[in-house]
Formats: sequence, C-alpha cells, structure tokens
Amino acid sequence: MVKGIAFYKEGEHVHEFLLIKSVTKGLASNGKPFLTIYLQDKTGDIESKLWGSTAEDEANYVAGAVVLAEGDITTFRGRNQFKIRTIRPTTEHDQVNKAELVMSAPLSIDELNDKITQYLFEIKNPVIQRLTRALLKKHHHDFFEYPAAVSIHHNFLSGLAYHVCCMLDMAKAVVNLYPEIDKDLLYAGIIIHDMGKLKELSGVTATSYTLQGNLLGHISIMVAAIGETADELGIGDKEEVLLLKHMVLSHHENPEWGSPKPPMFKEAEILHILDDMDAKINVMTRAIRKTHPGEFSERIFAMNNRTLYRPSFDIGDAEDERQHPFQENN
Amino acid sequence: MVKGIAFYKEGEHVHEFLLIKSVTKGLASNGKPFLTIYLQDKTGDIESKLWGSTAEDEANYVAGAVVLAEGDITTFRGRNQFKIRTIRPTTEHDQVNKAELVMSAPLSIDELNDKITQYLFEIKNPVIQRLTRALLKKHHHDFFEYPAAVSIHHNFLSGLAYHVCCMLDMAKAVVNLYPEIDKDLLYAGIIIHDMGKLKELSGVTATSYTLQGNLLGHISIMVAAIGETADELGIGDKEEVLLLKHMVLSHHENPEWGSPKPPMFKEAEILHILDDMDAKINVMTRAIRKTHPGEFSERIFAMNNRTLYRPSFDIGDAEDERQHPFQENN
Amino acid sequence: MVKGIAFYKEGEHVHEFLLIKSVTKGLASNGKPFLTIYLQDKTGDIESKLWGSTAEDEANYVAGAVVLAEGDITTFRGRNQFKIRTIRPTTEHDQVNKAELVMSAPLSIDELNDKITQYLFEIKNPVIQRLTRALLKKHHHDFFEYPAAVSIHHNFLSGLAYHVCCMLDMAKAVVNLYPEIDKDLLYAGIIIHDMGKLKELSGVTATSYTLQGNLLGHISIMVAAIGETADELGIGDKEEVLLLKHMVLSHHENPEWGSPKPPMFKEAEILHILDDMDAKINVMTRAIRKTHPGEFSERIFAMNNRTLYRPSFDIGDAEDERQHPFQENN
Amino acid sequence: MVKGIAFYKEGEHVHEFLLIKSVTKGLASNGKPFLTIYLQDKTGDIESKLWGSTAEDEANYVAGAVVLAEGDITTFRGRNQFKIRTIRPTTEHDQVNKAELVMSAPLSIDELNDKITQYLFEIKNPVIQRLTRALLKKHHHDFFEYPAAVSIHHNFLSGLAYHVCCMLDMAKAVVNLYPEIDKDLLYAGIIIHDMGKLKELSGVTATSYTLQGNLLGHISIMVAAIGETADELGIGDKEEVLLLKHMVLSHHENPEWGSPKPPMFKEAEILHILDDMDAKINVMTRAIRKTHPGEFSERIFAMNNRTLYRPSFDIGDAEDERQHPFQENN
Amino acid sequence: MVKGIAFYKEGEHVHEFLLIKSVTKGLASNGKPFLTIYLQDKTGDIESKLWGSTAEDEANYVAGAVVLAEGDITTFRGRNQFKIRTIRPTTEHDQVNKAELVMSAPLSIDELNDKITQYLFEIKNPVIQRLTRALLKKHHHDFFEYPAAVSIHHNFLSGLAYHVCCMLDMAKAVVNLYPEIDKDLLYAGIIIHDMGKLKELSGVTATSYTLQGNLLGHISIMVAAIGETADELGIGDKEEVLLLKHMVLSHHENPEWGSPKPPMFKEAEILHILDDMDAKINVMTRAIRKTHPGEFSERIFAMNNRTLYRPSFDIGDAEDERQHPFQENN
Amino acid sequence: MVKGIAFYKEGEHVHEFLLIKSVTKGLASNGKPFLTIYLQDKTGDIESKLWGSTAEDEANYVAGAVVLAEGDITTFRGRNQFKIRTIRPTTEHDQVNKAELVMSAPLSIDELNDKITQYLFEIKNPVIQRLTRALLKKHHHDFFEYPAAVSIHHNFLSGLAYHVCCMLDMAKAVVNLYPEIDKDLLYAGIIIHDMGKLKELSGVTATSYTLQGNLLGHISIMVAAIGETADELGIGDKEEVLLLKHMVLSHHENPEWGSPKPPMFKEAEILHILDDMDAKINVMTRAIRKTHPGEFSERIFAMNNRTLYRPSFDIGDAEDERQHPFQENN
Repeated sequence: MVKGIAFYKEGEHVHEFLLIKSVTKGLASNGKPFLTIYLQDKTGDIESKLWGSTAEDEANYVAGAVVLAEGDITTFRGRNQFKIRTIRPTTEHDQVNKAELVMSAPLSIDELNDKITQYLFEIKNPVIQRLTRALLKKHHHDFFEYPAAVSIHHNFLSGLAYHVCCMLDMAKAVVNLYPEIDKDLLYAGIIIHDMGKLKELSGVTATSYTLQGNLLGHISIMVAAIGETADELGIGDKEEVLLLKHMVLSHHENPEWGSPKPPMFKEAEILHILDDMDAKINVMTRAIRKTHPGEFSERIFAMNNRTLYRPSFDIGDAEDERQHPFQENN
Repeated sequence: MVKGIAFYKEGEHVHEFLLIKSVTKGLASNGKPFLTIYLQDKTGDIESKLWGSTAEDEANYVAGAVVLAEGDITTFRGRNQFKIRTIRPTTEHDQVNKAELVMSAPLSIDELNDKITQYLFEIKNPVIQRLTRALLKKHHHDFFEYPAAVSIHHNFLSGLAYHVCCMLDMAKAVVNLYPEIDKDLLYAGIIIHDMGKLKELSGVTATSYTLQGNLLGHISIMVAAIGETADELGIGDKEEVLLLKHMVLSHHENPEWGSPKPPMFKEAEILHILDDMDAKINVMTRAIRKTHPGEFSERIFAMNNRTLYRPSFDIGDAEDERQHPFQENN
Repeated sequence: MVKGIAFYKEGEHVHEFLLIKSVTKGLASNGKPFLTIYLQDKTGDIESKLWGSTAEDEANYVAGAVVLAEGDITTFRGRNQFKIRTIRPTTEHDQVNKAELVMSAPLSIDELNDKITQYLFEIKNPVIQRLTRALLKKHHHDFFEYPAAVSIHHNFLSGLAYHVCCMLDMAKAVVNLYPEIDKDLLYAGIIIHDMGKLKELSGVTATSYTLQGNLLGHISIMVAAIGETADELGIGDKEEVLLLKHMVLSHHENPEWGSPKPPMFKEAEILHILDDMDAKINVMTRAIRKTHPGEFSERIFAMNNRTLYRPSFDIGDAEDERQHPFQENN
Repeated sequence: MVKGIAFYKEGEHVHEFLLIKSVTKGLASNGKPFLTIYLQDKTGDIESKLWGSTAEDEANYVAGAVVLAEGDITTFRGRNQFKIRTIRPTTEHDQVNKAELVMSAPLSIDELNDKITQYLFEIKNPVIQRLTRALLKKHHHDFFEYPAAVSIHHNFLSGLAYHVCCMLDMAKAVVNLYPEIDKDLLYAGIIIHDMGKLKELSGVTATSYTLQGNLLGHISIMVAAIGETADELGIGDKEEVLLLKHMVLSHHENPEWGSPKPPMFKEAEILHILDDMDAKINVMTRAIRKTHPGEFSERIFAMNNRTLYRPSFDIGDAEDERQHPFQENN
Repeated sequence: MVKGIAFYKEGEHVHEFLLIKSVTKGLASNGKPFLTIYLQDKTGDIESKLWGSTAEDEANYVAGAVVLAEGDITTFRGRNQFKIRTIRPTTEHDQVNKAELVMSAPLSIDELNDKITQYLFEIKNPVIQRLTRALLKKHHHDFFEYPAAVSIHHNFLSGLAYHVCCMLDMAKAVVNLYPEIDKDLLYAGIIIHDMGKLKELSGVTATSYTLQGNLLGHISIMVAAIGETADELGIGDKEEVLLLKHMVLSHHENPEWGSPKPPMFKEAEILHILDDMDAKINVMTRAIRKTHPGEFSERIFAMNNRTLYRPSFDIGDAEDERQHPFQENN
Repeated sequence: MVKGIAFYKEGEHVHEFLLIKSVTKGLASNGKPFLTIYLQDKTGDIESKLWGSTAEDEANYVAGAVVLAEGDITTFRGRNQFKIRTIRPTTEHDQVNKAELVMSAPLSIDELNDKITQYLFEIKNPVIQRLTRALLKKHHHDFFEYPAAVSIHHNFLSGLAYHVCCMLDMAKAVVNLYPEIDKDLLYAGIIIHDMGKLKELSGVTATSYTLQGNLLGHISIMVAAIGETADELGIGDKEEVLLLKHMVLSHHENPEWGSPKPPMFKEAEILHILDDMDAKINVMTRAIRKTHPGEFSERIFAMNNRTLYRPSFDIGDAEDERQHPFQENN
C-alpha cells in the first residue's frame, strides 16, 4: 500500500498511480522544452519536471489524466519535488479509480447533507428558514461537491460544504456560551456565506475563476442572488433578508479583503470570526502535517506568509498522522 | 434684493427669509438649553445659535420651517456664523415661496431630462441601450430630483442628474479624442453609476441614509438592480450586462472607498476618473466661491482635508460671481 | 426596585444610590468651576455634570464615594447624560452596600475558581501543568478579582477570570472539533495569557496603568514572569516553557497591537482568535443592550469605531434583557 | 507588407527588419553565454534570446543596430517571445530606414507644434503668456522629440508633446463645461508640467535617467527653471509665476508619487487629473491592443499591476486595429 | 526676581510683565466675547482667557504688546493655564525691555556667527566653500535671527542658527569617528539645509507661513536658490552643486515629510539623521523641563504624539534647572 | 599579496585561498546538480557556481572549509560573481590560517574590552553601574566575539562589541553637547541593548537564528535577563532597572521593527537614534567601498532598498581604500 504523495521524504523512492492536476510548458536554457507537472493523490500534490518533453508527451500528460510514475523525492528551496525516472499514461488494464486520487473532505456528501439539514431545522424564524432552504435547494448539487477555494483553504472535493459544517459546529458552541447571539441569523449566514463561489469558481476540478467571478466576485454575486430568491418567495422586503445580505456582504470584514462594509451587527461579526478561524485552522493543520517535529513549515501565503513551528515534543504523535481525517473517507 | 446667505462677510447685517435645514438641541455650560440651527437659502447655508431656547422655540424651529431672521455675521474658526438678534416663524402673509430657498442644479428638470435622453439615443449597442433605458424608466421620478450625496458633492436638488449630465459632456470629449473608447459602455455606465443612491438616501430634502443604504451601500444595491432588470428584459446572460454591473461595482476604484474590485476594463476606469473629476470640480468651485481672492479656503473634507488658495489676481472676477450657475435657475 | 443606570431612556427620572467612578474638574466659560462625575451601579455608568461646584463638593464627591442622586436623563451626541437636580453623600444610616453598586462577572469568584481548576486538571503534559499551576498560585488572589482592562472589554470585577473561563469553554469546543490542536498548550496559554495585567493595572477599582504597565506592558511583564517561575521549578529549559512564553508574546497577533512576533504555531494563533472573539462578543453584547431595536449603537472604540445595528425583529426580546447575565450574580 | 511585431500570435512565423532596443548578456545554466535582445519596430517590441552567443554576436547586436531576423512566436508566462532561428546585421544594401522602425506619436512634429502654438495664443494673461512662450522657446528642439517616460506611458518619439496636446484638448472641454476654471493657468500648466523631463531623461532613444534626474527629479528641476526664466523676463515676483511653480511641483498629487505639496488651487488639481487620465488611457489602450477579445491583458505596472479585460463583443473591431493611430504617421 | 512663566505650578500666584504672543477672539456660550491670549516671557508661554472682553481690551491686547498681569495658575487637561485677575497695558514708565521677554538661543548672534565661520574654514573643497560662503552672505542678516520653525522645534530667536551650530558640533564627532564621511559636504549641507525657511517663514516674531512657503515649501525654494547662486559664481555645472541641492532636497528623508527623494549618498543620509536628532533632543528637553520628576509630560506633537516620562531619581537635579541654557543669554 | 575578494572588478583573474561561508545545492535545467558556494576572505564574500558537481564535491565543499580557487570575475545583475575554473580543498601543507579569512572588527577584542570598561567607569549611578557590570560579566565571552547580526549590519567577528564602542563614542559627544541627557542611563543602555542577540543568534560563524531567537526575539530575551540579574543583585525593584528594561524594549522604536513600546524617555530615544545611525553608517560605508566613483551601489536592503551614489569627485581617494579599517586589524 502506498504512503500518499504528501508524506514522502527527501531521498525516498516513489512508484504510484497519480492524477495530473495541472501542466505548464517551459523552455529550458538549453533551448529544449520541458513540462512542469503537478501530480496528486488524495493526500496532496507535488511538483515534477519532465525534461526534453516531446509532442507526444504534451498530448498524453494533460490535466485530468492518470499516470503511473516512478522516481525519487528531492528537495528544492524547502519544498519536495518529484524527480521522475519513468512515467506512462494508464490504460483500462490498470484499473485505477480516478476518484480515489482526489483529495476530499473527511465526511461524505450524504453525511454533510444530513448535518446541514439538521442545523437548518434548528432555525426557528420562518423568513430566515424559508430563504435559507430555498437557496440551498437552488444550489443543491454543486454546494456539496465544490471546493471552498482555488488554492487558499479547503481546496478539495466537498471543501465548501465541509467548511460550512465545521463553522456550524463552532457556532453551536458560541450560541450555547453567549445566549444573546441570534442562532437563526448565525446558522443561516454560515450556510449561505460562500454560496456565491458556485458561480465565482469554474467547477469541482481544475478550478479557476469565471468571468463573473473575476469582474464581480462571489460576494456581490451572492448578495444579488439572495434578493432574487427572496423576491420569488415574496419576502423581499423583510428586514431578515436585508440582514442576511449584509452578513454575506461583510463577511470578509475589511474592504481590502473584499467586503465594502464591515460587519454591522453582532451575528455578522461572529460569522466573520468563525469563517476566518476555520479557514486558518484548515490551512495551519495541513501545513503542519507536512512539517517534521522541531522544524518550521514552508511559508504560508494565507497566513501573511508566516512560517509555523511544529513543536518537537509532538514527536510521539507524528507517526500516526497518516490515519488522519483526510484519508478516512476514501 | 438679498445677497444670498453664502456671500455675507463678517460684520455685515442680515435680514432675510431663510429655510431651516437642521436643528439640534444642546445644553450650555450655564445649564440652559440652546438650539444650533442651520439656515439656508438657495446660495448655501450657515450655522446659528439660539441661546436660552424655550419649548415654544423648539416647536417652531424645526427642519423644513421657513423663518424671518435678523442679525449679524460673525466668524468662528474661519467659518461664518449668524448671530441671530430676532427670529420669527413665517405665516401665509409673508408669501414666501419655499422652493426658492432651496439650492438646486443650474439646469431645470426638463433640461436635464432632454440632455440625458439625447445621450441615450447615441448608444448603439441594443443590449446596453435597452437596459439603460429600462433602468432610467424605473427610477424616473427620483432620478431627476435627488441630490448626489448627503453632504460631500452635488448635495442639492437635482444634483444627481446634473452630475450625470456634466460627466456625459466630458465623456463626449473623451470619446472624440480617444476613439478606442467604447462610447456605449461609457455613456450607459455614467447614467446608471449612482442610481443606487435613490435607495441609499432617504429623499430629496433632509437627506439621510436608509437602513439598506447603511447595511449594503448604493453600489451593492445597484449591482443587484441591474441584474433584476436585465432578467426582466430577458438579457440577463449578456456580457454587456456583466460589464455594466462591473462598472457600477468598481466606480469608486478602491476597496477603502467602497469598490470591492478595481476597474478592470478601460471604460470602467474612465467612468471612475470622470466621476472623481466632476465631484472634485463641484466641491472646489463651491469652496472657492466662498473664499476671498488672496486667501485660503476652509479645509475641505472631500479633498483630503486640504485648504485651497484663491489667487489674488482673480479679484476682477470676484464681484461678478453672484450671477453664477447656481442662481440662474431660480 | 431600581432599573439600573444603564437602562434609562431620555426624559426618565432617576432617584438612586450610585457609586462615583471618576471625577474631573473643569472651568465653565462663565469662569465658574464644575465637576464631571461618572456615576455607576452594577448595570453600567453615566456621565453627569455638577455646575458651580464648591470646595465642599470637591471634597465630598471623589472616586469611590457613594451618593444619593436625583435628576433626569438627557441625551448629548447620542449618549445619555444624567442631569443632576439634587445630590448628597450617603451616611451609615443609608445602609448602602457598596459592593452591590459595582458591575461584576456573572459568575462568583468560587464558581470561576472551580471552573478554571477543572480545566487545569485536563492538562496532561506535566511541564505545562506544573508551570500553569504555579503561576496561578502566585497570582491567585488578584487573578480572580481583577478586571481584564481599564476600559475596553471585561472592565468589571472578576472580568479577567471570567474572560479566561469563556475562552476555555470555546477552546473545549475547538479541541473537540479539530483533534490536531494540542489541548494542553491551548488551555495553559489561555489561563496565563493576560496574567501580566495584574502588574500592568493598578488594581480592582479606579483602575489605571502602573509605571511598569506604561513602560513595559503586560506582555513583556508576563514573558519574564514565566521564565522566573519555570526557573524556580527547575524546568526553565523545556521547550514547553518557550512555547508558552511565545503564546503570551504573540497573543495580540500584530506589532501595532503590542505583539513583537506573530503567532508561530497553531495553538498560539488559536489563542489569539479566541481572545479576540471573546473580547469582541463582550463589547458588542454590552453595546447592543444599551441600544433600542431598530437603531444603531453609539460608536465602539474597540471595534474600529464602528456603530452596530440592533435588528428591529429583536423587539420581542428587548423587554427581558434586564434579567441578563450581568445582573444574575448580584 | 509586415504585420508589426506587436501583433503576431503564438505559433506565427516572423521574417522582418527590426531595431535592437536593448541587449543584456546572461550565463545559461550550462555555463554558456546568451543574449537577451529586445527587438522593436514601430508597433512595439518583443523579447528574444540568442543562445550560445559569440564575441562576434556581442559586437554586432548592440542597442541601435538594425537586424534581419527570422523565427517563431512563442509564449512564456503570458507574454510573447520571439524564438530566433536566423539573425543577421543589415548592410547598406538592405536599404532599411531606421526611422521607420521607431514607434512615434500619431501626429508629426509640425502638427504638434501648430497645435500647441494655437493653445498658446489663447492664453490672455500676459505674465503667463510670456513665461510659457519663453520656456517653450528655450526647450524647443527637445520638447517636440522627447518621449514622456522611460517605460511607463507615452514612451515613444514625440511622446511628451503628444501627451501635452491630448491634455490640452481635454482641458478645452473642461474650461467650456466649467467656466470658473482659469483657462490661462490650466493651458500654461499643461504645456510646462513635464518639461523638466528634458533634463531628467538622457535623450530620445535608449532613454535612461541622468544624474540630476536621479538626484533631483524632473519636478524640482522644472520648478527652478521657471524661476530662472521668470527672473530673466523681469517677472520673477508675480503671483502667476509662483502659481505655475506650484502647478509643476504638485502635479503628481501625492508625496509618494513625487509631489512634496498636493495641488492647492483648482487649476493645479485639474492639471493632475488630466495628466493622470491621459497617461492611463495611453497605457490601457496599448495594453488592450495586444490582448485578444474575451481575454485579460498582461499585468500593467502603471495601473497598480492590474490586468484588464477586453470585452468579447469587441470582436468585430479587432481585425481593424492595425490601422490605428500609432501607425498612421509612418 | 520672577520665576519665568514656564516654571509655575498649579495654585501659584503670578505677577509679571509678559509679552503677548498671539490673541484670538471667541464667543462664550453665554453670548459674550472673550479673548484667548498667549503670554510669554523668555522661559516659555502660557494660555490665558480674558472673559467678557471689551472693544478697548481688543485694542490694547494685541500680539506684540507688553502687559502687566496678575493671577493664578490652574490646570486644564494636563496643561497649565493662567487665570488672569488683573491685567493692564504697560507704559513707558514701566521701563520694561521687550527683548528680555523673548525666548532666544543660549548663544548670542556673535557667538553663533563665530562658530559657523570656524566650520566654514574647515571646508577644503573650493566649490563647496565658495557656494556655502556665498549663500551665507546673501542670507546673512536673517540667518542669525530667524527661529527654525513656527512651532515644532527651535522656535525662538536665533533658533535656526543655533540648530545649525549644534548639528555642526555633532557632525565633527561623526567625521572623527567615521573617517570615510566627506566633511566638506556634511558641514556645507548642514549650514544651508534650512536656509529656505528664511523665505518660507514670515519673520522673527509672530512667525507664520508666507504664500511661497505654503505653495512651495522651504525645500523647493532652497534647491532653486542654490542653483541661482551657483550660476552667479559660474560653478552651476559642478557635481558638488548638484550634490548639495540633493542634500537639501532629501533632508526630510521621506516623501510624506516633504522630501521627494530619499538621501542617495552617505553624507545626505547623515545630514538627515543629525537634523532629526537635534530637533528631537530640543523638543524632548523642553518638554521634560516642564514635567515633574516621576510624571509624564503632555503629549508632544513632534514626537508622534508620544508622552515622555521624567524619571523620579531625577529629583535632585530638578531644582537647578532654572539656570539652564535658555536663560543664560538674557 | 592578494587584493581581497571584495575589490576585484569584472574580468579580473583570481587565485586565492578562500573560506566557504555557505553552500546550497541546486538542479540545473539540464537535470545536472550544481553547488552555489559563497566564498569569503577578510574583505567580504562572493557568489560562485560549481556546475556538474559530484558527490565528492559535496563532501569537500562545506561551510567552514578552506579552498584554493582560481577563475574570473563576471557580473550578473550588477553583482560580481566568481566563475571558478579550478578549485581544490586545502591541506595542512598549504599552511593557511583560517582566522585570517574571516572579516572582523577593526579593533581587537582587548581593545574593545578596554574601551567598554572605561565607559563603564564613567557610570556614576550605583544601581546602573552594578547591573551593567553584572550583565557584562555574565555574557563576557560571547559579547566580544559575536557579530551584531546575521546579515544586516556589523555581521563580522566582534561586530556586536564594535557597534557598541562606536555608539559609546557618539554618546560621549551627545552628552557633552546636551548636558541634560543622563549619561549613566545612556551608556548603560548602549552596552546592554543588543546583548539578547547572544541568545538570539547561534554563534560566531555560520550564524543563524536559535529557536528562542525565532519565537521570542533578542528584545524579549534581554528584558527578562535584566530582571533576573537585577533580582540576583537585590535591586529588582529600583526604578533604574525598569528604565533600562524599557530602553532595551523600545530601542527599535517602532512596533513593526520589533519594539512593542516606543521610547518613552529621552535617553531611550537617543539610544535608538545612535543605534540606527551607527548601523546605517556601517552599511553605507561598506556598500560604497564596493562602488566605483560616479556610479550607484547595488540596492541595500537595510536602507529601504535604496541605491547609493558615490560622487565622482571622490576619485582621488578611491585607490587608497584598501588600507581601510576593516583590514588593519588582521
């Protein structure tokens, strides 16, 4: 059984089926072409170079293809690279299940659906309930499959719905501890806050930004979508609808991060805090898993380019980490 | 004939009908109440204090009332104040026309309407034409009466439509000079860019922010409104509609000024520049009118709190300025 | 039974025993002295002015004195003021219990102590446990009585310990949801993060900054204190000690907020997030309690000077709010 | 007839006379030298690499030389590159007119001169007229040949004078629309605002910064030059001269952009706005010409590193663009 | 003998001849006028209020007048105020020497002149020597009398020349310690760096900004003046002249502080550091003199609004401070 | 005799013993490994590449090894590189003294020690004297050998103590010129301000950051160390100790540069200024030594990435510079 591409160390030998995540062509300084190929399995991805690539290589090795690759792990500027010795496209005979090479949330789509439905039941305000339910229904299919981002956090299959579930669990703890928080607004705000990403991003795999994603952004897209759905339900003039629009509008907190207004009531502020906390924990946890105890991680763009330390007294646990959440489900 | 409240100098005596713009009650340090009253006529407004105010005063002197006031102009921290000696509410016998005490655009509503209609005819792209026409029709009544802001620029009757007309005239010069600019996008963007203010602001007089103005802002309101109207016309999926949404979204240029995305095509950038230029010229011109040649104006909030100099060789013209645009129409 | 000074509205009449929180003397523009007195009971505080104050008044009305005051609530720039008609010092005959006029945490000192002790038991790492226990023991008395700040958040009796308890409850939810977080580091970091305030602040009442508070700040004070205590326990060179020092050092996240280093491992980052969240919820909740449904609160310094909206559909709950946590305990 | 180097697409074959704009030598990772050569014709420039360059190559291929090159267009990181197959220096027999390979303004020097002279006639204030005329006379030759910048905007032959002409045309529209703007100050300010660049930049081709350009900048150079010329004319103490100095000093608006004072009267502010607008339109237009409809341009340094979108409904026009202004004149 | 107005404490009684530094008229909230008068002697200045002022008072108490005032020191917001009981204009019979009421440098004009002449002799480079000598000669009279600023630092008689002398003394230590620093450039740069203030500021007393000071600033004024003087000497094209212009241009280091270019050679950088250090020491020393040991000073605008602590172990010295430099010279 | 590696120019031939400062391995685009080796002698260091490196090369060429290298100087992006032709490890027979290949301060350890001891004697306040002496004694060995930084300034043998000595010499000039500065605080603050670097940095050669350096920084480390030492001396509660802690805490002036509090008394501010000045002069002097007269230096990270000009009239001195301080001592 294979280790998972994220967990090899420098010098180790790899021989695995891998999925091509992206390919770009370059020109080496000897004038010959080469391919930079990102290869992934369900544990993560790794950069590799195919030197002196041919036209046939370019045809075979495209995003979405599955290959059998063999070679060694080297390190360049603190990041692993995969030095390919041999590579070939797979055929039907190889009997590889492509879905098993994709990183995905630790909960299945059904589990995610159940969890969110449960929280939906707890929303008592009828305006908020109907609106949230209608929005969820409209976006149902994509909502449970989309990643939450192109590259920052929760960028894996069902990442968006998993992110929402974690936030809802934390929200439950918040409303228990601080009874003056309005549970209905908070739960609904969490469920819909990132739904605009289903229009901002191009799809579940090889995710990029759509034209409306580039020109409007998921926040503006979603604010308009809430209004449309509320109008269809005949509740377009309710204060609750305006409040939910504001929660979506303000959930990045800061103009520079894309919110033209800061949160202006307490549930909007808490939505922002929980969103930020869950994203950061996801990002930090995944960076630390790839770092040895007693060492610093590579720089993390989404954490202001900080590098994080993994305590050395963490050693005892380090060996067990391959059984961690992200593998369970596959 | 009266001078207009904006043009008195320190020491001069005033005896005029004036409209109350706003009133706030305070407590003097001798423990007695007083009213801070902003009085206006069509040339501008001035602060005054009514010391030792009675309950009857509070009933009589409210925003929107017309009074006959008499007193002297004093100066405090570089701004004129009106030291009231006598003040009384007006009655029917005074035969004051309240509309003549309100500052308004130098063009009448009909003139503004004609001008904008002309520009609308010049838009050749049918999607852009239909959408702009439909939006203008929906907002028709308010569009020609609203001010463009609570207090920053063009804060007078028909200020919004006048601001749009000035921008259109400049836009015409731009497309003549730079033929690669798309006239249709630019004209349409100008006409609709601030329409969201009709929902953001409470009305034509005693203007304040509505709840949705506070929680969403005119930009988000308008982006959604474009989508709704386009859907009604069956053109919701046209690229032109997306581009117009983006023009509205980005016309403040900068996240801190309320645009979550910067302008991302050339007509969007030019819309921003013309909007900014017309607003600044309006603000600067009005500040300079109140400043004597050879002196600096009071600090102007909308110009980064700068103070502007009025050249002293400007003296020859200074006496004529009371015939300027802002009076013509009344 | 009295309402509590925080809950009066403009125009209402007050007749209550109140505690003087602070007094400053000023000179009115008629040349006569006056006192600005902040009066408090357990629900909050209010500004009042005593015009034409005498030397006797200055002697009687000092911070810490209890008075019987009678007068009316007025509003100035959106904040309530108390217009005193009569005021007198209290005597023994009034039988006022000063402790009942002080705002305090909703949990008693014993409850807080029990709660924190419980969490201490859950820390398994012996180095972390011993160090935290020793620090708690050293600061025991003050730790359970001090406020968490002079004026920003949790500025009431036992505010510091209550803040720690809320953070611990949230931390428990975090470690349940995200099992890769080290519970021991997180709990210990929370318990000690603000202990330096016991040296930075002057005391439980009439709290101000000490000289070392001004020159060093609670963060630097506490980093040194951890080292000293660890040395006394003979564990000064353990990695865990260094990690806890870093958690205290970095818990304000940002150089401008007083942390020379940002959090550099995941538990340090989470400590910051929980600290920030609990402080903000405390600040927001108290501002909203003083705001009517459908209105905006006064500007909140600790929230970037934002003003918060209280939804109008919140009306049903508004009447009940006087039974809220902050009164329960008295 | 050739297309122009700016308009080839990936995969197309090139065989053209080209002018070398700049050359730098590098060392490939196989230890062999190579040349990075920027080649230009009147439509733009392109990067190329000459691998394994010899001493002879280094002698032949220097800035200012004309070559005949043949090869293919490739793309690297979203920018075109020219993959040279054969290259040779030209000889007299080739009969290439070097001037035809230089990008230049769409108006000839005579046309630019006529246009600016016309505007000069419209300046009525004698002090302003004499000073502007004298400055223009002093710098006459360079003024009509220099580019407006090393690399940002209008970086082509006669770019400075063309930039001034466009600004004057826009200024005419401004003074027509806003009659309170002083035409004399505005026209004069525009004509002289960038004259300091004639000392800041090294010349018409292979433009770089002079030592005084680096140490003082064109703004300080020009402010001093105005003073000197005014003294020579015996008008050094006129307010108009001080105002023109200030217009030059402040025309970058912002300290970070090189203006120690912001514009402090209205014509100075408008000068800044028109300068900025014309520069941006020049930059945007040229970036969009190189971008296919439906795609985003490369990042534009002078626009805060933004990338601009070229609408896809622009397709109809795309084919005609090779007849655009920048070619007309050659 | 009097103490000096800077050294009184709250509650002390004053009876002194004082010079009026500035007067502004206000309107009290009882509707009566009052004067805010800044009174000074050679030790400093103090704010006072004259309530219920008459037209005669306004005529008598103007900037530059000497008065005999009697009253008490009070404190308002941490600053001393002078509560006037009686005040009268002085007459010839009072025999007050106005010059003795002005704060001035601790060295006389002759001493300053000698010192600077000495440093001038040490400049060996003939271009630098001649230019510096010529500039000093041109500005001779004002140079030794002007203050260095309106209100920030060295704002007293001969403050500018004294500031230059202190910087020269420090520069001597710098060139001794670091022999690679060019002494000639550094000394010359120091002598001329602030000469532009002789045109930027209106004069020796009641100093304000001139119009060219406001529109150009002392830096631009001086850069031009260096060029003119160098041209007169026929050395306008020497590198040394350009370097000195740059030193003046860059000596505020930072665009926001008025330097469009940062220092670009080592002597220019050191000029900035010494300028900044001497200004700060002057500002700090004067703030601390007015602060009691063991207390914090009032906020200091020129030090980023910081408040400075005066150590309590400084007590022994506190009593002697009235013999300090600033009094010696009078 | 050799020139010193810092002083070669492009095209010159090198044949020298050199010390390897650092080595990193890379992969060329032809797939072969290469080593990037920084080679140093006492004058500076230079980058070189060893193409096609073998396993043996990797074993031989490690940080700390001495080699005999021969080759040529080339230039890449304005920086010299050393193109190695032949390289071999040295043996005992070569009789190279490694210590002579290390850059070090121009004063010997004994000279530095004497100088600092002298200044220590001048401190009169017994608390300050005892504390400074004790701290110096504790850190004695490392204090005189450590560099002052990894790469910014004074990054050479004894760099820290040399930096302290220069600052003390400047401080002496300051206290002579400004008698109100407390000499004792200033001298002591200078001696101890960077002592925390002895724990922050890993050692004298191949210097990197320690774990506590990364997590706490030298400032926090030293503030705690002062407290500990003061407690050992029984003077932990003296104001002087608190003041010295604050001087260390604030000596970077600014939160972003690592000081959570700005300097809050005058000696703390001056400590910062002298620290900054000495560091900048060190950095500038060394950059200029490597720059030809009439040219600009490479960009200097520690000076905000500025490039500095070396005046061309500096030519006469340029030839002599190889006898400069940094060589004298070896």
